Amino acid sequence: MKQREFNLDKFAHFSEWYNTVIYAAELADVRYNVKGFVVNRPWSSMAFKKIYALFEKELEEDGHLPVIFPSVIPEENFEKEKEHVEGFAPEVLWVTKAGKEELKRPLALRPTSETAFYQMYQLWISSFKDLPYKLYQSCSVYRNESETNPFLRGVEFLWIETHNVYATSEEAWEQTRKDGEIMRKVAFESMGIEFLQFQRPKWDTFAGAEATFAYDCLLPDGKALQFGSTHYLGQHFTKAFEVSFLDAEGKRQVPYSTCFGPGIWRMMAAVAAVHGDSKGLIFPFDVAPIQVVIVPIMKGKEDGKDILAYANSVAEALKEAGIKVRIDDSDKNPGFKYNYWELKGVPLRAEVGAREEKEKTVTLVRRTTREKTTVKAAELVQKIKEQAAVLLKELQERSSKWLLDRIREGGDKEGVLRILEEKGIAKAFFCSLEMEGKKCADELKEYTKGGKVRGKRVGEESQGNGCCIMCGKTSSQQAYIARQY
Amino acid sequence: MKQREFNLDKFAHFSEWYNTVIYAAELADVRYNVKGFVVNRPWSSMAFKKIYALFEKELEEDGHLPVIFPSVIPEENFEKEKEHVEGFAPEVLWVTKAGKEELKRPLALRPTSETAFYQMYQLWISSFKDLPYKLYQSCSVYRNESETNPFLRGVEFLWIETHNVYATSEEAWEQTRKDGEIMRKVAFESMGIEFLQFQRPKWDTFAGAEATFAYDCLLPDGKALQFGSTHYLGQHFTKAFEVSFLDAEGKRQVPYSTCFGPGIWRMMAAVAAVHGDSKGLIFPFDVAPIQVVIVPIMKGKEDGKDILAYANSVAEALKEAGIKVRIDDSDKNPGFKYNYWELKGVPLRAEVGAREEKEKTVTLVRRTTREKTTVKAAELVQKIKEQAAVLLKELQERSSKWLLDRIREGGDKEGVLRILEEKGIAKAFFCSLEMEGKKCADELKEYTKGGKVRGKRVGEESQGNGCCIMCGKTSSQQAYIARQY
Repeated sequence: MKQREFNLDKFAHFSEWYNTVIYAAELADVRYNVKGFVVNRPWSSMAFKKIYALFEKELEEDGHLPVIFPSVIPEENFEKEKEHVEGFAPEVLWVTKAGKEELKRPLALRPTSETAFYQMYQLWISSFKDLPYKLYQSCSVYRNESETNPFLRGVEFLWIETHNVYATSEEAWEQTRKDGEIMRKVAFESMGIEFLQFQRPKWDTFAGAEATFAYDCLLPDGKALQFGSTHYLGQHFTKAFEVSFLDAEGKRQVPYSTCFGPGIWRMMAAVAAVHGDSKGLIFPFDVAPIQVVIVPIMKGKEDGKDILAYANSVAEALKEAGIKVRIDDSDKNPGFKYNYWELKGVPLRAEVGAREEKEKTVTLVRRTTREKTTVKAAELVQKIKEQAAVLLKELQERSSKWLLDRIREGGDKEGVLRILEEKGIAKAFFCSLEMEGKKCADELKEYTKGGKVRGKRVGEESQGNGCCIMCGKTSSQQAYIARQY
Repeated sequence: MKQREFNLDKFAHFSEWYNTVIYAAELADVRYNVKGFVVNRPWSSMAFKKIYALFEKELEEDGHLPVIFPSVIPEENFEKEKEHVEGFAPEVLWVTKAGKEELKRPLALRPTSETAFYQMYQLWISSFKDLPYKLYQSCSVYRNESETNPFLRGVEFLWIETHNVYATSEEAWEQTRKDGEIMRKVAFESMGIEFLQFQRPKWDTFAGAEATFAYDCLLPDGKALQFGSTHYLGQHFTKAFEVSFLDAEGKRQVPYSTCFGPGIWRMMAAVAAVHGDSKGLIFPFDVAPIQVVIVPIMKGKEDGKDILAYANSVAEALKEAGIKVRIDDSDKNPGFKYNYWELKGVPLRAEVGAREEKEKTVTLVRRTTREKTTVKAAELVQKIKEQAAVLLKELQERSSKWLLDRIREGGDKEGVLRILEEKGIAKAFFCSLEMEGKKCADELKEYTKGGKVRGKRVGEESQGNGCCIMCGKTSSQQAYIARQY
């Protein structure tokens, strides 16, 4: 694929668009010779560092500390929480040999680390003074999957996991709300990705949790993408691992816990799919691997020298201001360079030609609309920040409009199906989000070819009464329904 | 162990000192229920983030880009480089099952990633314009070990690995020199750890390499600790994986390659062991999890309020200047707090009492010498930077003196043994550092109970001739010998 030819409508051909852009922009390579495992190339790895840093900053401000646990979990730990092992056992990769020796007991590659953390929490937590106990880990996890799709689905993927323990149930519930705020700050306020927060139906709750909250954005093919979730674990894991503490009165108590898993890998899928356009990727400024690309526009070798020297001085000034900048001084023509860096999603381009060099200005071009602004070199850092803010605002508005406009009242199951076929998210009355609703959910999924009950939207009360779209029972429960990744 | 009681001479009882301080300062916990795997607690994890960042900055300035490869490597890749597979096979952990299914082919947990990277380099490198190709990965690797010692030895440990490919052998050799410079910048100039750079004897060369350079510091028990190495790989891996490129004349060529592995985990061991003293850890300012701890000194509740408010305003100012600061406002007495934060190795303590509050000053205490300096609050940020620089200088001088003073001429094998028994590094004539010297090296190791030939010191020429301390052959080759981790 030649970059200059890239011009593909993501709405009309999403799957082709996505695979092409991921490959052509050099975000990932699926040709590694183990099925299910993807190589994250430098262009995504640089962005991952920034996405991780955004979450880590928010988590630390909320009192979490970083920790690095072993990647393996012994079988005996897994078996301690019954629902958890049932949920995860089919997906676990097992280490069984070291050199030529069989291990005495197999070790799981962590699919998630509750059963590693709680093993230690039992040792670390003993008094109410130790609580709350809030740790996070930035790492890979491993879940056996039959499909591979870069950043969307794979055996090994990148995430953060928090594991928090509280003296009271109230504090644990409060954390589930705060996790949603952290997700809002990073995903929407820094990265411009609109999403909805749901409490999942009981049958779709994390293995070992009492309640699951999840963050869904909407891709251009109308499928929801969950890019993170928060679980209220009650006393499931603290009881299973015999974690307890002495309260202020000296009485032994069992604490409550939560976990939060921002799906860093899927955040990259969302950046690519939600923000990208027919020319390629669009990175929000805060997570862009390169934030400003400088393209010198030179007619001949002679005027070129001055322009290049000027471009270099501009680059130096930006570097000093902490901006990730790159000069493209390759021998390609400017048009080729524009296309290339647009495909790569660099948010701002700085054009520097003879006029700019003479007038000590820079022409800034925003990736979203290609609007040009010529600014004085002396004001460049300030103007870049302004343009970055405008770009973020544009991405936020686009993605909010895309998502929120697609939510529609389903009415009946035919209506729901129609909405899903039109790439929408349906809202409809549903008999129950407890286990007794599962039968209707299964039938709905079959009827709509993949439509899934996403749950109850957090912060929204159901209005009035209606009939469950599947069984017809009267219900006051409204649910959201969408196809999904 | 109560913190206030910590008072142990690391030179007299190193192993006890080390294990006690690692546990008491909450750097690591060895009680995780899989042998060989250690939990890196927040206090070390925070420092690891900073150590990684120091290396990553230097590597990126030297033209490396980050990448995130799969953690697993298929068996067939391993087998492609004969020496490599022979060297690593006994240490490899194998994933053989997913859920209840046997995998068709086992997957190695990476012990190092040459055989993953070169699999892709074959696809990514095709022209001289693609070279040099320089990537790095910050990750865990896995090598089956019978011993466990936090940060020194374990099955899973933290490191960085670079994998670089060049058109010419000269450029590859030049990189091995640059890697040494990067190590110098981070380990010594930022972290204050003195070390020696050796070219290892042929028999101690990395499996698949033509030459191995290694970085050794010296722990208080007189054992050398290798905390990183660089390998000149020649065309071993590029040939095995059929990596080639078209040169400027259109001729197909096989490139040359190197790798560099800063041992991030062992850097932490070195920080603890080399800098620590009888009171606990001493973190260099640049990698300290908390750089300044503020201890408010209050007589009663009443004057406490003003002092605490003042301490908070000081903390805010430091935070804004990007300094990692923490106020210890717990109800412990100041003496307890001093001991606690000294054990934890916080480089600077800021004491704030009634006098400081009244005069708008802060009393800074340096962890190394406990020297006190009272400074105006308005000049605090500047003074902290000065004190941090003084502390770094002290650590550098101490560690240089410790290491360089311990190098002595061995003379004969009895002399070498005596030097090792006195916790020294011996320098002596040795028949050969090529394979024919291995027999003497094995005998020396047995004779000296673990003394190993570290190799030829980089940048130093052997002086004159002498007799090999083992076989007596005349040789112009001087070698360094030490016990090791």
